[in-house]
Amino acid sequence: MDPQLITADQYLLIYNAFSFTFAAMAAATLFFWFGRSQVGPAYKTALTITGLVTAIAAYHYFRIFESWTQAYSVTDGVIAATGFAFNDAYRYVDWLLTVPLLLIELVLVMRLAQAETVSTSLKLGTAAALMIILGYPGEIADDNTTRAIWGTLSAIPFLYIVWALFKGLGSAIERQPESARGLIKQARLLTFASWGFYPIVYMIPYTSLAGGTVETGVQIGYTIADLVAKVGVGILVYLIAVRKSAAEYGEPGKPAAIAG
Amino acid sequence: MDPQLITADQYLLIYNAFSFTFAAMAAATLFFWFGRSQVGPAYKTALTITGLVTAIAAYHYFRIFESWTQAYSVTDGVIAATGFAFNDAYRYVDWLLTVPLLLIELVLVMRLAQAETVSTSLKLGTAAALMIILGYPGEIADDNTTRAIWGTLSAIPFLYIVWALFKGLGSAIERQPESARGLIKQARLLTFASWGFYPIVYMIPYTSLAGGTVETGVQIGYTIADLVAKVGVGILVYLIAVRKSAAEYGEPGKPAAIAG
Repeated sequence: MDPQLITADQYLLIYNAFSFTFAAMAAATLFFWFGRSQVGPAYKTALTITGLVTAIAAYHYFRIFESWTQAYSVTDGVIAATGFAFNDAYRYVDWLLTVPLLLIELVLVMRLAQAETVSTSLKLGTAAALMIILGYPGEIADDNTTRAIWGTLSAIPFLYIVWALFKGLGSAIERQPESARGLIKQARLLTFASWGFYPIVYMIPYTSLAGGTVETGVQIGYTIADLVAKVGVGILVYLIAVRKSAAEYGEPGKPAAIAG
Repeated sequence: MDPQLITADQYLLIYNAFSFTFAAMAAATLFFWFGRSQVGPAYKTALTITGLVTAIAAYHYFRIFESWTQAYSVTDGVIAATGFAFNDAYRYVDWLLTVPLLLIELVLVMRLAQAETVSTSLKLGTAAALMIILGYPGEIADDNTTRAIWGTLSAIPFLYIVWALFKGLGSAIERQPESARGLIKQARLLTFASWGFYPIVYMIPYTSLAGGTVETGVQIGYTIADLVAKVGVGILVYLIAVRKSAAEYGEPGKPAAIAG
């Protein structure tokens, strides 16, 4: 994509979206980690991981913001490319870490048997990493055919994950406490819906839009998807952990039962 | 607004106000979070959120300060615009996150039934976000007619919030412990009064003041409003959480009752 094609307004919109997302990810991280003291021992790791996902994303959005401001300069309202390329790879590096962890936080908050937790986390985590690795060569490709080939390959582990979430974990969800079951289904659906948004953004370059509009669509699209997948799903995981703690360890007003 | 019209004195006043506000927001954040260990379990989340509001504001005032120093240079008492535009959007990005959270901290400290907490937070949070989003196009508009149109649209969700705080939550406030009821009404009033201050600042460009005076009025006005709405209301929420904890979990001198 020719960086020259972006307008000053598009540059600023993306600039502010990156700063917003850094702040939101960092704030969410602290919220999840503070929440650790308010849930039962079995759910502390789920909130640790939930906060790690947003912490890793906060770090990458900080780097993305820095890289973005380095790539362009706006003087008296006129935009110019500085010659430093914007590093798109930060996103994939972020996803390689956070996407497997996102599935693991869902598995942990379900509190399955220990052996099932390990094997499910391993299978879903590996599939998620594979999905990201296969998508990247397409993202950096100059031609849309290469983009389509890697995008299709990346869809295979994605479909496996969808199958595992809806079919494989189905019976485990039915065994969850009633107060949390609806929320767990919502978390699963939001994970599916937000992940389904990434391929749509991935395909924006296939449209006949101008270069600057494509770049803006891709950056804003991935940013919204990241917010929903990480902060949105994270808040649901937090609520599930709180409700299951109340069901299994007693209400927070009775501290003896939640100590730890 | 022509950045050239600001004087060196006005530049320094705003510069120092931004630095002051960063320090105040960061200090308030630590105060609220330290307070978490001194309140009952039901009030920890309210203080987590109260601290998140000032933490997010601290981040944005740091960025605002950096952007301000980049926009002007003062050499031998003579001010010059550097050509880098001051990024006013940081305020709106901040409000988009903090204004819904401010209402949520008020709802949380009231400790309503779980379902009522979720539905009230969702309604008030959405209205608050809508209020900010509708105000922004007016803030960046060059002509005062466009500013007036978006400002008026933004007032609709604001009036809904005022109605919800004074009418919708009225009976819930009457059910609060007597020791905290007065403080909760004060917090509600301070929220209303400080939020009512923003539209006044928003309308400063309608006056016949010179450009530099308008810019100074807007920056100092929003800064004072932010301090009152975030730190001022936050201190009241902290006091409410402490008093309600004493009423519901016992006095802090009897630690067994508040542990957790």
